Amino acid sequence: MCPSCEPEAIANGNSNSNGHTNGTSNGNANGDSNDHPGFTAVETKSNPHHVRSNPYQPVGDFLSNVSNFKIIESTLREGEQFANAFFDTAKKIEIAKALDEFGVDYIELTSPAASEQSRADCEAICKLGLKAKILTHIRCHMDDARIAVQTGVDGVDVVIGTSSYLMEHSHGKDMTYITNTAIEVINYVKSHNIEIRFSSEDSFRSNLVDLLSIYSTVDKIGVNRVGIADTVGCASPRQVYDLVRTLRGVVSCDIETHFHNDTGCAIANAYCALEAGATHIDTSVLGIGERNGITPLGGLMARMIVADREYVMGKYKLEKLKDIEDLVASAVEVNIPFNNYITGFCAFTHKSGIHSKAILNNPSTYEIINPADFGMTRYIHFASRITGWNAIKSRAIQLDMDMTDEQYKACTAKIKQLADIRPINIDDTDSIIRAFHRSRVLGKDVSETILAPVAATPDDVVV
Amino acid sequence: MCPSCEPEAIANGNSNSNGHTNGTSNGNANGDSNDHPGFTAVETKSNPHHVRSNPYQPVGDFLSNVSNFKIIESTLREGEQFANAFFDTAKKIEIAKALDEFGVDYIELTSPAASEQSRADCEAICKLGLKAKILTHIRCHMDDARIAVQTGVDGVDVVIGTSSYLMEHSHGKDMTYITNTAIEVINYVKSHNIEIRFSSEDSFRSNLVDLLSIYSTVDKIGVNRVGIADTVGCASPRQVYDLVRTLRGVVSCDIETHFHNDTGCAIANAYCALEAGATHIDTSVLGIGERNGITPLGGLMARMIVADREYVMGKYKLEKLKDIEDLVASAVEVNIPFNNYITGFCAFTHKSGIHSKAILNNPSTYEIINPADFGMTRYIHFASRITGWNAIKSRAIQLDMDMTDEQYKACTAKIKQLADIRPINIDDTDSIIRAFHRSRVLGKDVSETILAPVAATPDDVVV
Repeated sequence: MCPSCEPEAIANGNSNSNGHTNGTSNGNANGDSNDHPGFTAVETKSNPHHVRSNPYQPVGDFLSNVSNFKIIESTLREGEQFANAFFDTAKKIEIAKALDEFGVDYIELTSPAASEQSRADCEAICKLGLKAKILTHIRCHMDDARIAVQTGVDGVDVVIGTSSYLMEHSHGKDMTYITNTAIEVINYVKSHNIEIRFSSEDSFRSNLVDLLSIYSTVDKIGVNRVGIADTVGCASPRQVYDLVRTLRGVVSCDIETHFHNDTGCAIANAYCALEAGATHIDTSVLGIGERNGITPLGGLMARMIVADREYVMGKYKLEKLKDIEDLVASAVEVNIPFNNYITGFCAFTHKSGIHSKAILNNPSTYEIINPADFGMTRYIHFASRITGWNAIKSRAIQLDMDMTDEQYKACTAKIKQLADIRPINIDDTDSIIRAFHRSRVLGKDVSETILAPVAATPDDVVV
Repeated sequence: MCPSCEPEAIANGNSNSNGHTNGTSNGNANGDSNDHPGFTAVETKSNPHHVRSNPYQPVGDFLSNVSNFKIIESTLREGEQFANAFFDTAKKIEIAKALDEFGVDYIELTSPAASEQSRADCEAICKLGLKAKILTHIRCHMDDARIAVQTGVDGVDVVIGTSSYLMEHSHGKDMTYITNTAIEVINYVKSHNIEIRFSSEDSFRSNLVDLLSIYSTVDKIGVNRVGIADTVGCASPRQVYDLVRTLRGVVSCDIETHFHNDTGCAIANAYCALEAGATHIDTSVLGIGERNGITPLGGLMARMIVADREYVMGKYKLEKLKDIEDLVASAVEVNIPFNNYITGFCAFTHKSGIHSKAILNNPSTYEIINPADFGMTRYIHFASRITGWNAIKSRAIQLDMDMTDEQYKACTAKIKQLADIRPINIDDTDSIIRAFHRSRVLGKDVSETILAPVAATPDDVVV
């Protein structure tokens, strides 16, 4: 992977209601981006967008919270369970402040019962005076609850395993014990006038009647939220919809959801949970957590901005996403995945001729997200065998080398011929474009001679 | 990211019907894995598994093809549209052979009309005599169809944009033109006695009546498959289910689906499409394709093995997944994402004390996929502040250092105390365990002195 391929130029331009800019001008507009070889940042026609209705837009649903959701950001709890994570106090504070600035609603911290430093860090973050509410996540146990309420948190997230697997192999308690303990812990936390959430663990492998029974009980004694957790990452979207929809009919409190990504459904499940009436989604930066993690903050933003751009843009400072991801990736010593949502180096890169041509006409043809909303830039990769003449024409115009359409097409054929033989870069294509342009000025026909020999260096092909 | 953290040891042991091994013994069982610092491969109790029904398992649905799906592997078509992809002939053949050995049903290749080399490569792969059927993917145009049928492919995948965006800004044709061209191309390909698929492009932003109308028409003239494509990655799982379910009632041919991953739903959408009656899923290795790509082969395997382990294990050589991913990642010069499904370095790593304890009792508690099914190994990360005494006990037993539970707990407290101050590794924890064990043998109480000074090097703490 080429880290230098990260788009640097910031796209600007006015957004229209369709979510795309009218011309993404940027500092790299002349395309001389040697840090992004073979790619060019794209300048689109002014005002190419037409707002169209999407026939598959969900019809209005009074249960859905797709346009009214809250984020419980758990990088400092679930994320600390990621294999590589060790956050010292300073790093925790730096991450908490960055998340607060981004605009997350809640920040969840590791249990103060986990270790003395975890307790001290929890207190330190509570004292920062952030806009986000601070939560800590504890076992359903009075010992942990007593420590938690002393830290200054705005709320406590209580969890206990309710699946037969966990009842037998983890804590060894039955549903009666779980219910009685839950009531004791909830009443205790409520007596300290802070928020309380009760969650089952491994909810999708728990007995439905047990689940609904305990959720109903804790709802009646006044929890702020109940939580559903796909702890092992087994749930599918329609299972999630069904369970949340059922639960929505049983409790009146808020519903938080937590999805692991072992089987690739963590973002989709979060979306379906909101459609079914869930109110809160747990995320972590880059999705870090146990195993391969949970719903990633950036991926959720990608999903939700498509569903309700106005809500997402109004609430979260999306242009800060990349910095937060870089901060956390560096802290846990991982690279941003090449295919990461929004910030991956290829997220807004278009390559095939058909795609490139259409993007040049109207970015909405092959982009559902406007990169400028996140401070990112789109690229056309035109130096390849699957490029098209519209992409080459666009590049030639950037280089101030106007030609006829026939000449662009002949030039493109030569570029594809070279690209068939070896990987080519922006210098190769530019040299060929320059050669064709010069031949036009000189009145020569270069089409037969320009690439003989085809394996020549770029300079050689300039006639 | 630490590439050396890739699990190397191969888990073996007998699988039971719950999909987990009875004891994952492996070459690293003594945990002296300096290539995986702070982690230990796990040996579980023999026969700890209990088969349980999952109350959220979907009820039998006659429409669903979750247990009867086919893969159209498009690394050599969609994948070639990935920003970094340049496959020469030898690499294409190597990838095609690897995919064939894995057991994919179809291999889809770049259009032979894209370039002369693309055509030659297509012919070369057709001549390999693979078990997988070879397809090529062309525009809905007679020029392309004439070239395609001469290559020796088993089938042709035809595509044309049907959304208003693409009709206006890409090919500029209306539905009447599209329908007439489709009929001509389909009849031509069928006359060569090879398979033909007709797909719309950007199906989820196309007019539903237009879509159903053209699919119904091409079904009647005998296409083998119709295709639905979420070309921009905007579709949500329930939209997918609804569209495929509707289409299933309109056509009698097979239904292929193609999902981009811009908003994180490519795997979930594939699953919901199968639930609704789709028959074929497009994948690429690591999901490579335009922008951030499509449904990844490995991620789809993760999803499907949870749905029907017998079908997936019987059909695909899952232990070859990691090699294929390494092959393609190397060819396109990317790293395997740290959080990749199944093969990511942390996919089967457990860290928190609660998780570790339960995993040691029964891996099914916190794993929905058995790593051994893919030739992978699980790890417990016990060198952290959120570790638990069960994990430390397990490590001590690996080191042949039996102690009482009280001693394990005291030892764990010391390890957590050190881990609060700095990142610790396996040497740190092993030194502390050895110190406690030696003190037991010597009858000394080391609990107060062992970590003074706490910042000492591991050797210093051995009393």
